[in-house]
Amino acid sequence: MIETVNIVEKFALIHEHWHPRVVGELNDAFVKLARLKGEFVWHHHEHEDEMFLVIKGRLLMRLREREVWVNEGEFIIIPRGVAHMPVAEDEVHVMLFEPKTTRNTGNVRDERTVDAEWL
Amino acid sequence: MIETVNIVEKFALIHEHWHPRVVGELNDAFVKLARLKGEFVWHHHEHEDEMFLVIKGRLLMRLREREVWVNEGEFIIIPRGVAHMPVAEDEVHVMLFEPKTTRNTGNVRDERTVDAEWL
Repeated sequence: MIETVNIVEKFALIHEHWHPRVVGELNDAFVKLARLKGEFVWHHHEHEDEMFLVIKGRLLMRLREREVWVNEGEFIIIPRGVAHMPVAEDEVHVMLFEPKTTRNTGNVRDERTVDAEWL
Repeated sequence: MIETVNIVEKFALIHEHWHPRVVGELNDAFVKLARLKGEFVWHHHEHEDEMFLVIKGRLLMRLREREVWVNEGEFIIIPRGVAHMPVAEDEVHVMLFEPKTTRNTGNVRDERTVDAEWL
């Protein structure tokens, strides 16, 4: 069944931070939505490029050599192998595009590691 | 170089309709922006699922058996093989996610066929 997905309505169903929920799949990729707040963990993805599209708020993306602000209506693509640490001083809503194989914490496995789960 | 992409700023650089421009790449996919106005052509993509995220306006997606409105802030994923015809009564701004191999007119090649081109 081909259906539209309303991003704002989906976010209303998400209550946790740092727990991306799958809202679509195409080809080998998942579309995910996540609420972020606070600091995440330094990690990289060995084989996957990852896109962060900021739906609401603004995201600070720390890279090893510098940091980049990603404002509402902007996206950033983190190439495979690049260490990054997303930081949300205030709550941020992001849409993620990444291969289905992507683990949220990349090369790290800790208490923030969660499996991809459909909303 | 890892940079943010501002969607509104990019749209200001696009002047044609039905001519998607590449604004990002990740894994095997391109992120594209397109201004749509009027009717496109019936087509399908043999091997590629395609995602339309409506940034501005509202898009009518005609399918063989029915039609679906995709409003601002909503997306729709058209699975491979499914015939579709996007229609924009008023101008619509969309973000597209599709494999790099995707031809805009799918199985059809006509005067509206354009190659993927970076903005």
